Amino acid sequence: MGFTDRHLLGIEPLGPAAITEILDRADRYVALNRDPGRHADALAGATLINMFFESSTRTQASFELAGKRLGADVMNMAMQASSLSKGETLIDTATTLNAMGPDLLVVRHPHSGAVNLLAEKVTCAVLNAGDGRHEHPTQALLDALTIRRAKGRLHRLSVAICGDIAHSRVARSNILLLNRMESRVRLIAPPTLLPKGIEGFGVEVFEDMEEGLRDVDVVMMLRLQRERMDGGFVPSEREYYHRYGLDHDKLAFAKPDAIVMHPGPMNRGVEIDGTLADDINRSVIREQVEMGVAVRMAAMDLLARNWRAAEVPA
Amino acid sequence: MGFTDRHLLGIEPLGPAAITEILDRADRYVALNRDPGRHADALAGATLINMFFESSTRTQASFELAGKRLGADVMNMAMQASSLSKGETLIDTATTLNAMGPDLLVVRHPHSGAVNLLAEKVTCAVLNAGDGRHEHPTQALLDALTIRRAKGRLHRLSVAICGDIAHSRVARSNILLLNRMESRVRLIAPPTLLPKGIEGFGVEVFEDMEEGLRDVDVVMMLRLQRERMDGGFVPSEREYYHRYGLDHDKLAFAKPDAIVMHPGPMNRGVEIDGTLADDINRSVIREQVEMGVAVRMAAMDLLARNWRAAEVPA
Amino acid sequence: MGFTDRHLLGIEPLGPAAITEILDRADRYVALNRDPGRHADALAGATLINMFFESSTRTQASFELAGKRLGADVMNMAMQASSLSKGETLIDTATTLNAMGPDLLVVRHPHSGAVNLLAEKVTCAVLNAGDGRHEHPTQALLDALTIRRAKGRLHRLSVAICGDIAHSRVARSNILLLNRMESRVRLIAPPTLLPKGIEGFGVEVFEDMEEGLRDVDVVMMLRLQRERMDGGFVPSEREYYHRYGLDHDKLAFAKPDAIVMHPGPMNRGVEIDGTLADDINRSVIREQVEMGVAVRMAAMDLLARNWRAAEVPA
Repeated sequence: MGFTDRHLLGIEPLGPAAITEILDRADRYVALNRDPGRHADALAGATLINMFFESSTRTQASFELAGKRLGADVMNMAMQASSLSKGETLIDTATTLNAMGPDLLVVRHPHSGAVNLLAEKVTCAVLNAGDGRHEHPTQALLDALTIRRAKGRLHRLSVAICGDIAHSRVARSNILLLNRMESRVRLIAPPTLLPKGIEGFGVEVFEDMEEGLRDVDVVMMLRLQRERMDGGFVPSEREYYHRYGLDHDKLAFAKPDAIVMHPGPMNRGVEIDGTLADDINRSVIREQVEMGVAVRMAAMDLLARNWRAAEVPA
Repeated sequence: MGFTDRHLLGIEPLGPAAITEILDRADRYVALNRDPGRHADALAGATLINMFFESSTRTQASFELAGKRLGADVMNMAMQASSLSKGETLIDTATTLNAMGPDLLVVRHPHSGAVNLLAEKVTCAVLNAGDGRHEHPTQALLDALTIRRAKGRLHRLSVAICGDIAHSRVARSNILLLNRMESRVRLIAPPTLLPKGIEGFGVEVFEDMEEGLRDVDVVMMLRLQRERMDGGFVPSEREYYHRYGLDHDKLAFAKPDAIVMHPGPMNRGVEIDGTLADDINRSVIREQVEMGVAVRMAAMDLLARNWRAAEVPA
Repeated sequence: MGFTDRHLLGIEPLGPAAITEILDRADRYVALNRDPGRHADALAGATLINMFFESSTRTQASFELAGKRLGADVMNMAMQASSLSKGETLIDTATTLNAMGPDLLVVRHPHSGAVNLLAEKVTCAVLNAGDGRHEHPTQALLDALTIRRAKGRLHRLSVAICGDIAHSRVARSNILLLNRMESRVRLIAPPTLLPKGIEGFGVEVFEDMEEGLRDVDVVMMLRLQRERMDGGFVPSEREYYHRYGLDHDKLAFAKPDAIVMHPGPMNRGVEIDGTLADDINRSVIREQVEMGVAVRMAAMDLLARNWRAAEVPA
């Protein structure tokens, strides 16, 4: 049993077979995208609406490109300047768009759980492009694809996720996926940047980079999300970089062939040294972006297969 | 003689045969849109430009989807952030875009008559997506299609239009269309929300919902457009809802099978009760949105037929 | 040897054969665009990203239409509201987009040289849509095409460029192109609106319209770019119009068949009289817009030919 769901709302409901099916299909789209004569038709005749209630140039672009390369009609909705300002509710907006007959809504929203709520109210497929601190499934899948292509496997790896974990849906989806694929996750962060109740997640927690990075295969840096820190402790950038910023020196604690990842956009000189980020012998940050388009194409393709199967009379 | 015009600027110039031709073709597009393998090619190779000088997420989305499903290249122009801020005039902007060779301009503008003026200056077809308090022809056509599908006909119906009629191009286009199709229109509103000279429009006017709704087949609620009320009387929302907000109780004055309509976006609890809006036994508000895409496809398709006929040598 | 470059960053590196090849191909696209059944497939399967770090409705629209008419997937990036606000650098943004696998980046940027810098960092083709006061090659090419179609040739013409030359990349690219094609350029401007070191450009400089316009074949008016004047002398619009604004009277100093050009958007009554701008016997301003789409299609088509040739194994 591979990926048979109607929506892709998170990593939480996915088993190893579903994850593997998405990644296998994504591998094929990587090859297609590198071919200059490329184009696929898995979404020909279908309509995709990008509803971004939180602006994100790169993620929206990745979904838009993925949809267009599959032959879909893609429509971007700038939801800030939208009817919401006229007092319409999220659900009214979603059901209105649903009534226009799209096949797929790609939704990003600042509130955890908003995308799941929306998915209950519409008849089309919904793909979560990030909701609050909850999930960001395609980011975890693209990270997994990048790791699998660099390391040849996803199981029995040791992966360190470092930095601002408290504000990160990326960390949460990655922990879920890596645990499911039988890799071990270590979190490295100051206590103020760890979410409460993290002990229940099946992770090891470290405060110190030297200890935490020891012998890991993969180092995932997170963006310091100052814009989400409301009150509470905000470290100075200089101090943060000194203790938690990844450079070649700290990376030396990890395995000699450990790879460096970052979901972007990077704060160079805050959570990561610019030279290391650009070091193509260690950093796979650019590959992550490329894998992002391929993973999104694969997810959309499989959602389309599932909605088409649902339309066939019994 | 059906719809033979070069532009679609309003309901005013349309006879019953033209209206019927657009609605008949829209019926076919409803069927197409419900088919998952859908796509048409009536606008293949054609270029459509959406020029919205007044932002409207849902209407722009409806036109964009309609154009893309017909195979057109669709370009959205955010006219607020445009050359207009550099001192260029409306006419310069329009003639510049016209010189780029589009086949169809879809234009929304806050000033009554601006779209007609623009249509005189360009060589391509123009579709009015709402101008000031003047006309909004595709809204009236989608309302008509919704009514015709629910009631089986458009003639000899009694239709009540309720609420903020003074600020509404929707009301104006609907009155014109319903009169032309030999249905009777009742307006229900406080005197401050009625336009001057409304007596000449061939409508009956009521101040009271109980009287006005008596035995009507269709109840069209309008959005209270506080954003357009400059000075003058602005009712409190609570008082307005008490006297003019539609709920199941007030709806009981109408025929037992009367349908409820709203052009959206709704102010729930102001002009309409949220429960009634969601009651699929009475409300056809979601159908209106679906019909919107189909009516716009039909209108564009017929405009394309007409511009192609004009190009054929005599 | 025609146009064999990987990027189109400016007129500077282009020889007469390359310029002529682009213009010849553009002529064919003019014919195609005037045909209602038009559409080409030179960019079918290719992805074009419009990156405008400086907003420009008309130029962005021209590139978007050009790409779509060639069959490309076109994505517009609103770079103001982008990751740049999260502290990402220009180069990070460009390499991130590059990793998504586009074939062509069309870039406008407020800083001179930014587009060349970016082109060094990406693997795809780059087309400069205007950078600071440096170059705007497609504007010069569309102006050249307009002149060639009106005058039958590009050599041995006398062309006056008038007005705000100091702030104009349009003037700079036009001077380079016209010199290369063996036409003579005259600049007419108050000394405060002339760039320093203009003497080295192979142009004649005039302060007075009567002298400068004498016997010219072409009069190019420039937009007075008040928004770029930081401190320094800013003429009153009335005084400027009196001395440098083009009207039928001043145009009488030029050849009887001299044509009038303007890159738009125009300040009517500042640098040009509205009546003259609309006089189809003298003004080719609308043709310039039409030529813009065709020239951009030609440039993209030739860039695609060059990147495809580079992919063929040796």
